[in-house]
Amino acid sequence: MSVLDENDSVIDDDEIVTSLPQRYYTSAEQFTEDVEKIWKRQWLYAGHVSQVKSPGDFFTFTILNESLIIIRTRDNEILALHNVCRHRGMRMCEGSGRARRIVCPYHSWSYGTEGELLAASPQQSGLDLDFDQLGLHRAQVSVWQGLIFVNFSPEPLREVEDMVGPEGTAAMARLEPEKMKVIHSHVYPTRANWKLLLENGVECYHCPTVHHEFCKVLDPSAMTGYYAEDYNASLVQELVIPLQYGKDSLTLSGNVASKKLLGDFGRGTPIPPDYSGTGFMTQPGYTWGDFHPDHAMIATCYPTGPTSSEFAAYWLVHEDAVEGVDFEVEDVIGLWATTHPQDAMTLERQQAGIESSAYIPGPYSASAEPAITGALDLYLRMLGER
Amino acid sequence: MSVLDENDSVIDDDEIVTSLPQRYYTSAEQFTEDVEKIWKRQWLYAGHVSQVKSPGDFFTFTILNESLIIIRTRDNEILALHNVCRHRGMRMCEGSGRARRIVCPYHSWSYGTEGELLAASPQQSGLDLDFDQLGLHRAQVSVWQGLIFVNFSPEPLREVEDMVGPEGTAAMARLEPEKMKVIHSHVYPTRANWKLLLENGVECYHCPTVHHEFCKVLDPSAMTGYYAEDYNASLVQELVIPLQYGKDSLTLSGNVASKKLLGDFGRGTPIPPDYSGTGFMTQPGYTWGDFHPDHAMIATCYPTGPTSSEFAAYWLVHEDAVEGVDFEVEDVIGLWATTHPQDAMTLERQQAGIESSAYIPGPYSASAEPAITGALDLYLRMLGER
Amino acid sequence: MSVLDENDSVIDDDEIVTSLPQRYYTSAEQFTEDVEKIWKRQWLYAGHVSQVKSPGDFFTFTILNESLIIIRTRDNEILALHNVCRHRGMRMCEGSGRARRIVCPYHSWSYGTEGELLAASPQQSGLDLDFDQLGLHRAQVSVWQGLIFVNFSPEPLREVEDMVGPEGTAAMARLEPEKMKVIHSHVYPTRANWKLLLENGVECYHCPTVHHEFCKVLDPSAMTGYYAEDYNASLVQELVIPLQYGKDSLTLSGNVASKKLLGDFGRGTPIPPDYSGTGFMTQPGYTWGDFHPDHAMIATCYPTGPTSSEFAAYWLVHEDAVEGVDFEVEDVIGLWATTHPQDAMTLERQQAGIESSAYIPGPYSASAEPAITGALDLYLRMLGER
Ligand code: FES
Ligand code: FES
Ligand code: FES
Repeated sequence: MSVLDENDSVIDDDEIVTSLPQRYYTSAEQFTEDVEKIWKRQWLYAGHVSQVKSPGDFFTFTILNESLIIIRTRDNEILALHNVCRHRGMRMCEGSGRARRIVCPYHSWSYGTEGELLAASPQQSGLDLDFDQLGLHRAQVSVWQGLIFVNFSPEPLREVEDMVGPEGTAAMARLEPEKMKVIHSHVYPTRANWKLLLENGVECYHCPTVHHEFCKVLDPSAMTGYYAEDYNASLVQELVIPLQYGKDSLTLSGNVASKKLLGDFGRGTPIPPDYSGTGFMTQPGYTWGDFHPDHAMIATCYPTGPTSSEFAAYWLVHEDAVEGVDFEVEDVIGLWATTHPQDAMTLERQQAGIESSAYIPGPYSASAEPAITGALDLYLRMLGER
Repeated sequence: MSVLDENDSVIDDDEIVTSLPQRYYTSAEQFTEDVEKIWKRQWLYAGHVSQVKSPGDFFTFTILNESLIIIRTRDNEILALHNVCRHRGMRMCEGSGRARRIVCPYHSWSYGTEGELLAASPQQSGLDLDFDQLGLHRAQVSVWQGLIFVNFSPEPLREVEDMVGPEGTAAMARLEPEKMKVIHSHVYPTRANWKLLLENGVECYHCPTVHHEFCKVLDPSAMTGYYAEDYNASLVQELVIPLQYGKDSLTLSGNVASKKLLGDFGRGTPIPPDYSGTGFMTQPGYTWGDFHPDHAMIATCYPTGPTSSEFAAYWLVHEDAVEGVDFEVEDVIGLWATTHPQDAMTLERQQAGIESSAYIPGPYSASAEPAITGALDLYLRMLGER
Repeated sequence: MSVLDENDSVIDDDEIVTSLPQRYYTSAEQFTEDVEKIWKRQWLYAGHVSQVKSPGDFFTFTILNESLIIIRTRDNEILALHNVCRHRGMRMCEGSGRARRIVCPYHSWSYGTEGELLAASPQQSGLDLDFDQLGLHRAQVSVWQGLIFVNFSPEPLREVEDMVGPEGTAAMARLEPEKMKVIHSHVYPTRANWKLLLENGVECYHCPTVHHEFCKVLDPSAMTGYYAEDYNASLVQELVIPLQYGKDSLTLSGNVASKKLLGDFGRGTPIPPDYSGTGFMTQPGYTWGDFHPDHAMIATCYPTGPTSSEFAAYWLVHEDAVEGVDFEVEDVIGLWATTHPQDAMTLERQQAGIESSAYIPGPYSASAEPAITGALDLYLRMLGER
């Protein structure tokens, strides 16, 4: 049975598709190729506009060896500046803050909010430096519905809004996500290749076994259908996690966790019993945002090595919601704070199994795992293997 | 003097043999070759039958990237099943337990106690999967005197009993080791190449310097003789640690530590004053079991990298012995719990010295280190270098 | 602008010199080459004569994979013996002590204070070993003004005193540094390539930004001048850290921290208001000693990997100074104990920035960073790239 041939890449005939051969999940060379051809060639979620409200506000976004300063300029534009001093390479900023100029903490070279070099003493004295050539390098930015995306591609990518399309944008706009704020975040170190996180995230066939709490709110059968029918293999797309009929939000109780509702719902529109919220997904390098009438959770994967990743979660509510009055943090985060560690533990054990000589790719379910097929197909095409 | 030639492998003329050149103890490539040609080609001690008493009882045995489920089937056979789900590679079991079927904790594929695939929904619906091809992979098992050995060789190996031979088997059978149980275990992480553990284990010339407590019970001169005369370079063999005349057991006091004696001795046969017990050794990949009329200690080496290993010790007594009545744990484990850390510390310092550019192989003693010569000869033959 | 060409090595035209390309600070291959061509080819500071006062006194000096026993022989000579037993490679000594003979803790081979093999039983019995060939290997030693230097070069290097020259030796001799003792030491692990420590150490242009406390005592402008005028690219040289006029010592207060003064000053000579002390530097592999009328601080860099180093500091005072009477440890160490962690934190952030794809070598200041140019030029010449 050809399914079991361990030397081939993904096997794809009319009926049977398999997981990837071992080397894709373990080899250092493959990881280097993944970084160059995937992670540096697609949109990555960097943060939310509420993190850069006023001119000079900035935060740092760090992934792999790269660090960007996401900053709002004097002219109210959002830019992504490489966080690397043009003198001797210092990583200049950490965390977040507000600054009129970026001053390097090593020898005080200073840059404006657009990255332009302002002062480089004492290099200036007697040296004929071309300041125009010594500004901070930039990465491409695309802001969609208050969500900031960046990429490291040498060629500019299509804007995120173009990729998502008008329907996905309208669904997101209904919740006015630019009027939110981050109230909590958590990082889960996971000893597993990033593609196991991706595969885990685009099927919900494991949910009944792994996520008991999640399944009290979720409608897994609808989700299966969703992946089969609505999934498309583009770098960014809409994503909806289907709730059971009558549930208002993806929380442990199924009720909203923040009374200050978003968009129309905040202005009195009742939540329809069949409304599941909206969201987005970047892939193959993997982030997904899950938005409901009262809150959102954005989960993002950071590769750190061939067999290790970090998985960060950010929770957001309406920008005017007040802790203790409109919401309690534990209600907002409860469901995903329960669910994420279950995935992390599962994926670490899957990684361990895949490292065995006894691992060979197994068959995917046509009904439950079609989106993995799509995601791995996109991945292999980006590698140039298809 | 040719002894000092650092570029050669083991130097072996009529009189002088040396330790190995540096690369054998430090290089990543050599370690990979060691794993493939040694560790995956010989019998490895996995555990004791008391750990799988009843049908469905299992424990996991994990070494390098491999994990096995050692299980007693419904038909009372002991099997070693690769702990890797045939769907997407999950390591399914951890620790030990009893199970009627093995259910994968990721998507609930389930397997019988012989590893046969029982259910794979929803793959089954509409997919023409050949269940016979999707059972768990197996490794070869050989049970000798209650001791369970496994190997990862593609070609089956001769049974352990054949390798040990009738005399070694009779010596072991006298103690009825299948009627024992594990009462304590401990793992010693050791920053040293596994071959340093091997070389340490097959000479006792270091005992007077390193192991003062051990030498109050042991007869090192007899052991020297033993290694010179009785050692044979096969994958499994008998091993006896010679006690001083009149000592009953290898304990700190020299007396038995468990009143519930083994085999004949348990039925009233007095312990002869010149009786030293029995045991076994696997090599070059290294385990040794040291058996006395009242207890046993089994020490086993797990390679973890070119310059790191783990060393695990398991202590066993008669299956009917009762803690607090027949024995105290600290009496049973005292001698080896004192001795093992002395070796670990010594070997870490030896590894550090060998990594120096000043290390060159030095001459072995013909009288005190002949077994190292034999063990390294077997090692080099398995590599194909002899 | 050619300065920005990331593929070249150090760019050096009439006016503009840059930092090194990324690979010099990150690649494992480059690190291996650095070890062989730099660290094993130059004088390294090992310790102070007070650590080996009497025959048989020894201490160990460990760097990279090498460990030396620095020992005073029966004939009052100071030798550096490789700390590797000629039997099976044991690292024999740790820390420091006094010994009539060096006995290996594995199998008791024993060596005299000159490293000669004294006993190797039971190898001796029946084996025709040539003891003259089995002594401990030696490394070259050069003692200058009480400071012990060693090197691992296969060809002997010129003595340290020859390299420093008569003026530097006279400046050091004035303080009689051989009559000191070590009162404190500390190790700072730093996730940065060793050349970042070197570059940091041979410019003081960062001091106003990074070291506020240091700048209250130091005269940075004079130091800038110093590096421009007095720096010479040899393996060992004099080094003076210029103090502000009127300051007596490099302490947080600018006053001496130990009342027991050194050399002439201890015999009543007043400290001139324009006296800054003296010192030495080894480079490119980097140590510097900073000596004042009352104390000294010696800082030494230990490479540990392509992107990691350790930085150790040793503080010394007059051998007759009494803690609590003549000095308090915190006064002696205060300034550098404040300054060193500032550098370590800075260099870790520089390393992070340099690992980014956005890093390209930037222009050095001709007035503030000339010594880096000299140090990197020596480095590249030792690599054979110039
Ligand atoms: S590295 Fe930024 S100013 Fe020097
Ligand atoms: S990995 Fe075992 S059922 Fe999916
Ligand atoms: S290793 Fe030193 S005596 Fe054996």
